[in-house]
Amino acid sequence: MSQATPEPLNIGLFGGGTVGGGVYEICEESNKDFLAGIGADVKISKICVRDTSKARDFSIGAHTTVVSDYKAILEDDSINCVVELMGGVTNAKDVVFEAIKRGKHVVTANKALLAQYLPEIQELLKQHPEVHFAYEAAVCGGIPIINVLQNDFFGDKISKICGIMNGTTNFMLSKMESEGADYDDVLKEAQALGYAEADPTADVEGLDVQAKIALLAKLAFGATVPVDTVPCQGISQLSSADFEFARMMRSTIKLLGTAMLNADGSKLSVFVSPVVVPLTSPIAGARGAGNIVVVNSRNVDTTSYSGPGAGRFPTANSVVSDIVRIARGMATPPFPYDKDWTFETDFTGEFYTRITCKDALGIIKRVGELAEENGVSIHAILQNPIEDRDNVDFVVTTEPCRLSQVESFCSSIAKERWAKNKPLCMSLL
Amino acid sequence: MSQATPEPLNIGLFGGGTVGGGVYEICEESNKDFLAGIGADVKISKICVRDTSKARDFSIGAHTTVVSDYKAILEDDSINCVVELMGGVTNAKDVVFEAIKRGKHVVTANKALLAQYLPEIQELLKQHPEVHFAYEAAVCGGIPIINVLQNDFFGDKISKICGIMNGTTNFMLSKMESEGADYDDVLKEAQALGYAEADPTADVEGLDVQAKIALLAKLAFGATVPVDTVPCQGISQLSSADFEFARMMRSTIKLLGTAMLNADGSKLSVFVSPVVVPLTSPIAGARGAGNIVVVNSRNVDTTSYSGPGAGRFPTANSVVSDIVRIARGMATPPFPYDKDWTFETDFTGEFYTRITCKDALGIIKRVGELAEENGVSIHAILQNPIEDRDNVDFVVTTEPCRLSQVESFCSSIAKERWAKNKPLCMSLL
Repeated sequence: MSQATPEPLNIGLFGGGTVGGGVYEICEESNKDFLAGIGADVKISKICVRDTSKARDFSIGAHTTVVSDYKAILEDDSINCVVELMGGVTNAKDVVFEAIKRGKHVVTANKALLAQYLPEIQELLKQHPEVHFAYEAAVCGGIPIINVLQNDFFGDKISKICGIMNGTTNFMLSKMESEGADYDDVLKEAQALGYAEADPTADVEGLDVQAKIALLAKLAFGATVPVDTVPCQGISQLSSADFEFARMMRSTIKLLGTAMLNADGSKLSVFVSPVVVPLTSPIAGARGAGNIVVVNSRNVDTTSYSGPGAGRFPTANSVVSDIVRIARGMATPPFPYDKDWTFETDFTGEFYTRITCKDALGIIKRVGELAEENGVSIHAILQNPIEDRDNVDFVVTTEPCRLSQVESFCSSIAKERWAKNKPLCMSLL
Repeated sequence: MSQATPEPLNIGLFGGGTVGGGVYEICEESNKDFLAGIGADVKISKICVRDTSKARDFSIGAHTTVVSDYKAILEDDSINCVVELMGGVTNAKDVVFEAIKRGKHVVTANKALLAQYLPEIQELLKQHPEVHFAYEAAVCGGIPIINVLQNDFFGDKISKICGIMNGTTNFMLSKMESEGADYDDVLKEAQALGYAEADPTADVEGLDVQAKIALLAKLAFGATVPVDTVPCQGISQLSSADFEFARMMRSTIKLLGTAMLNADGSKLSVFVSPVVVPLTSPIAGARGAGNIVVVNSRNVDTTSYSGPGAGRFPTANSVVSDIVRIARGMATPPFPYDKDWTFETDFTGEFYTRITCKDALGIIKRVGELAEENGVSIHAILQNPIEDRDNVDFVVTTEPCRLSQVESFCSSIAKERWAKNKPLCMSLL
């Protein structure tokens, strides 16, 4: 009968930054004795950084050599595991691919690399079955969602996975919800606090989530999702008015990555967009920089997993979990299964549309006509008392319809002389 | 380098009831092809039930024999895995122990067996290192909390684990919260709906949670907790008034199992009790029969895991995950580590005490005196307008103090002539 065979790991670590320092501290200091005690023989013998002379915010033991040449790790046959925490795609790809080719195990936190080169990585791993490949830290830093999807749904059938996978935007949306603040102000605050980059595009336009939901769709559905094709709507169009309307609906607004089957289970929709979420949903409860993933499945119905999505030690902890599983001989196959899917971008759902107009006679009647023309059935119309007749917001929510129908409805409205712009459209959870 | 070696499993299933039927359906019908596709060669060749002539609510394939004699499975050398879903302790112990002795893998959902015989099971497994032992379904049915604790905190240090681990009582408490109903009424409703047993003691007095938190304490802290010594307070003392006071505190009341370190990390407290939980906590969001577990740790801070705690397919799904991991050669050591702990029942916390009295002059002054005498610092006093002078409820919340201090405070109050009974005492989360 089979038993796990531990394998001492001699690690070459790429990246001596925030997460790399955290991994080094855990493995070589805070939990060194504990790891040895549970049979995880782990040593980080080399760290590769861009500038070896730069001061680090963690102390490096005498048994660890700091190098700047990739080859010093990749060509060192005594190193049997590469931990890639450099970020970026180009150099990380060279390092990870070469490590696999040389039969070294790989642990990475690089969602962009994974999302962009998934088929190539899978192919390479097939040629090197002796290599363990792990990436718990790539999605939702401190939440063990990769382990859970790799190990706990074999007997189940997932119908939907969605969640908050970006802490920066969730911090911003939480501020907009709790303080009634507007987008531009919370962005400035997030930048001042270091949550958001000077160029916040990757976060606020949802590109970060795009890569993450593509990875989760791989795990949940076996789907190889071409990342660039994932429809992606960010949060920069949201205003404080949207949070007021959401409150009227006993809801809030969250930026979600979603992968879900259509009604008959034949097609898969993967998209990133702000979503109106009822306050009773656990997703609404994830405030600040927190992340949460919710899985709907045939057997278990709904489970959810929440925690920090980023940060030195939460992310480092996930990296260390991967390292230890490999060292103890208990690594999981990285991608549980593969399945070809037809992707459906024109998914069915209920929608929220916020219409901004100059007040005039007959607007509601005209909105009703345009809805009917586009096959959209109106569920509710929400409006606050009018304060500025030149700038009136109201919201139309729909019965279930296709995304293309509600988008066509919004385009029709944009052509009306009273419309100030194209209505903002979001899904309802 | 080590690779997982799959091992075809020929399973003998003990128990053809709710969960057993679910496991059979998943393995032999709904996911049979999928499991074969991912390399999990799983066959259930025998089911042992008390009455072989009884009609079952699942259809049994021709390749499966229904037996009533334990030996038909235990003495069958072709069976290499026993799945124990009989429940109870006496017979289940015989089956599980004999299976291990005969070198068969064991999957069980039996929390009571595990909690009661943990040291013996560990000892037996040491003598049979070839045996895999898995029990994901034993705690919080559909939530993969066992896998997470076995695999995702190697580099971390858990300081507290707590949660809602009993669906019956959470259903009742949610009703009391949302409908202002009283305990006796919601118990009757839970019994009528089949959520609660005719004798509800194990649920409402917290005994079910006692076994579960003992198991989680083993995983989180390495502690072998003598289950019978875990202080256990149920929900039968709670009244609608408590939910009114909780609402004044922007909180609700949940029955929690808790295992936590004291401030300097030297002692472990394990207990079951109703707890006043702020509405902002994810624990407050788990309504109805849902379960949730929250883990606090040094690296990751807070993660939480929620989902159904019981039910045929959620529980069966966890059993199947265990089976598949063994079949794919990826089983995890069942108990990550062992550590001797000093247990501290007299833990420090903030407390809620509800005092019921006949209205009289000077009660608040006397309460203040008794608090001071017992070393209890009062945080707040909550009272609704008095309606019935013979039956007045008010609440005293405390600053951090030891449990023994607040209990002594409550005992002192009980001796006052105006006190109607000993005050109810709960922790604040």
